[in-house]
Amino acid sequence: MTADLTIDLDRLMGRIAALGRIGALPGGGCKRLALTPEDAEGRALVTGWFRDLGLDVHTDVIGNCWAIRPGRSSGAPVVMGSHIDTVATGGLYDGVLGVLGGLEVIESAIQAGIETERPLAVAFFTNEEGARFAPDMMGSGVAQGGLDLDEILAKVGIDGVSVAEALAAIGAAGSHPVGALAPDTYLELHIEQGPVLEAEGLAIGVVTGVQGISWTEITVEGQAAHAGTTPMALRHDAGLVAARIAAEARAIADAFGPPQVATVGRIALTPDLVNVIPERAVLTVDLRNADEARLQAAEARLFAQAEAFAAAEGCRLSRRTLARFEPVAFDATLVDAVEAGAAALGLTHRRMPSGAGHDAQMFAPRCPSAMIFVPSQDGISHNIREYTAPEEIAPGVRLLAQVALARAGRVDQKGQTE
Amino acid sequence: MTADLTIDLDRLMGRIAALGRIGALPGGGCKRLALTPEDAEGRALVTGWFRDLGLDVHTDVIGNCWAIRPGRSSGAPVVMGSHIDTVATGGLYDGVLGVLGGLEVIESAIQAGIETERPLAVAFFTNEEGARFAPDMMGSGVAQGGLDLDEILAKVGIDGVSVAEALAAIGAAGSHPVGALAPDTYLELHIEQGPVLEAEGLAIGVVTGVQGISWTEITVEGQAAHAGTTPMALRHDAGLVAARIAAEARAIADAFGPPQVATVGRIALTPDLVNVIPERAVLTVDLRNADEARLQAAEARLFAQAEAFAAAEGCRLSRRTLARFEPVAFDATLVDAVEAGAAALGLTHRRMPSGAGHDAQMFAPRCPSAMIFVPSQDGISHNIREYTAPEEIAPGVRLLAQVALARAGRVDQKGQTE
Repeated sequence: MTADLTIDLDRLMGRIAALGRIGALPGGGCKRLALTPEDAEGRALVTGWFRDLGLDVHTDVIGNCWAIRPGRSSGAPVVMGSHIDTVATGGLYDGVLGVLGGLEVIESAIQAGIETERPLAVAFFTNEEGARFAPDMMGSGVAQGGLDLDEILAKVGIDGVSVAEALAAIGAAGSHPVGALAPDTYLELHIEQGPVLEAEGLAIGVVTGVQGISWTEITVEGQAAHAGTTPMALRHDAGLVAARIAAEARAIADAFGPPQVATVGRIALTPDLVNVIPERAVLTVDLRNADEARLQAAEARLFAQAEAFAAAEGCRLSRRTLARFEPVAFDATLVDAVEAGAAALGLTHRRMPSGAGHDAQMFAPRCPSAMIFVPSQDGISHNIREYTAPEEIAPGVRLLAQVALARAGRVDQKGQTE
Repeated sequence: MTADLTIDLDRLMGRIAALGRIGALPGGGCKRLALTPEDAEGRALVTGWFRDLGLDVHTDVIGNCWAIRPGRSSGAPVVMGSHIDTVATGGLYDGVLGVLGGLEVIESAIQAGIETERPLAVAFFTNEEGARFAPDMMGSGVAQGGLDLDEILAKVGIDGVSVAEALAAIGAAGSHPVGALAPDTYLELHIEQGPVLEAEGLAIGVVTGVQGISWTEITVEGQAAHAGTTPMALRHDAGLVAARIAAEARAIADAFGPPQVATVGRIALTPDLVNVIPERAVLTVDLRNADEARLQAAEARLFAQAEAFAAAEGCRLSRRTLARFEPVAFDATLVDAVEAGAAALGLTHRRMPSGAGHDAQMFAPRCPSAMIFVPSQDGISHNIREYTAPEEIAPGVRLLAQVALARAGRVDQKGQTE
């Protein structure tokens, strides 16, 4: 194999820290919601670094930005990317690592005099988090044709501003049309955002795909009544039905086994008084599985049981889908290459699905795509306590370099294409 | 038996409607929180009616008001009473019926030339609802020595105003000391506020006592984590523990059987997001039983199971008591008299405990006390839809008259004491 590329970990950590100061929160972490002034400042900082390296910087109409280092041949680039927007209580690593890690790979390659046959690119995509505008993975979804541009531009965010207005307000939209970024290969380095790698003491997650996601909002309508004077037999307790659904969600996850997960994150009762039987309960159920048939089976059991609980209590039940993504399987050859690269670098690793959504899943239908995970301390993300140590980041970036350069056709100073 | 007293149902319903116009809400019902300007207006209207009848009107330092029609002999009065304050979404009948029903008994007796050996009185008590100031049953509790006057005067309401300030603001405090109202007998006519009488097609509830009430707030502390990336085995889901406690509360009520009731009226999750495992859940459990030992057994089972659910999920649990009242048994002889009176008047009836708290329970330790229930449409109360038809009210007032006049020693025009 070719020698491991030497990366400058201090330079990378310095950039992560510098970007983290934009939108920094008092207790740590940062808030850099998509297309806000903070996002604009972050974009300026990162594209400045792109330009400092002499990369060709392009921005498309939805604000996706990519920077290309030309290859010896023309053709589609090998793209390393992710996002730089955060949730309202975000950390410094989610998304940022994939972008600045990709930048570090290119800068290290330039400094080492390593060229590639195909162009090599680093990119960030607009509004991956979905914390200001729904849906999430917006920029990558539009770029790859999964989402319709005009529909997306009209979406209104939590602050009443549309995507089109927000793009204009910070001048984030470029002139490149949707689809201008057509990668040969898409690679995304990311923190795991879960506890598995840390719990198992492993350096690398070889991501095999993204779990299918099913978000359902369930509304139960019962009848408010006095908690003291209403006999149990005459009650229509919407809160009880919600509680039974929440317990059933856990029972489904237990019965199906990994990788099935199930979460009830929200429960709202009306009127929410200590001595009044709830007349209304609204709850959300988040179901995920890497296998579409299993995910559908989990949904079917949950919905059937929810209906049965409601009927037994004399309540009405309705539900609406908040989000539904089928599982995505990453390109088998590319996943094998990531795994082989980890082994070649002597890094402990395991295959695993991603439980969270990522830009990579939007690219997967169009080009070979894969992801590399590094550990998250305590499995925490979307939280100011999000943390991955520099010595845990380094192996991920080395592996990203290994796979990206190989896919792009690495040519070392001696002129030999690998 | 003596002839049934003829009451003027139109006059009574007219007064209920007139009082209901004070603090009337747009959709019906009314809001007449304790010691507000609306309450002051209501007090003025009702005491005006008292004075129109030539009754001796007295007000004590906490704003309780009673009006006495002297008996042939001196001695403690037979008191008919309740309250005229309402909750924020109150109806026209809760409390008001007991006061204006008592007034109707006295006015009808005067018009029929019926006298009594003991004085006969009608009264209303300050802040029974507890909707502005905690605790509820405040005025009757202070009057009967169950609550300390100075402590109560210092209580601050939901609007930041103390009881003492609110009393002063509307001039509701009188000169009579605490304990000046010492009834020989206390009788309270009230709407059931529950569905039992309507469901069983009965006219009268012969109230045997008030259920013991146990309100507990339970806080579960787990750990927030990503709903997609956190395996089920590594979760500490505070929301799941709350859901299991809610289901257990119902299981306890089912296992114990009537009159045990159990209600989880509030559940609040933090951070309350669809894709984040709840790190914190706060819920309330309302347990009631007419038997103190059974109520303690219900509490013990609930608390033990809640601890077990928390431990199994790796969560911490804490709880605090929001309210705790032991069951109150009304005077057996007086309850028998109410039941016999209902039978004598040919009214369908059943014995039942009160699931809600009432002023009568504050009097019960000091003098023979009892209550009469009339049906509530759909069991609804503390709601602008609260309703009891005039033809359902009339039997309650007739029975109140029957029992009150008998206890006071009815003397008809012919001069014969019953």
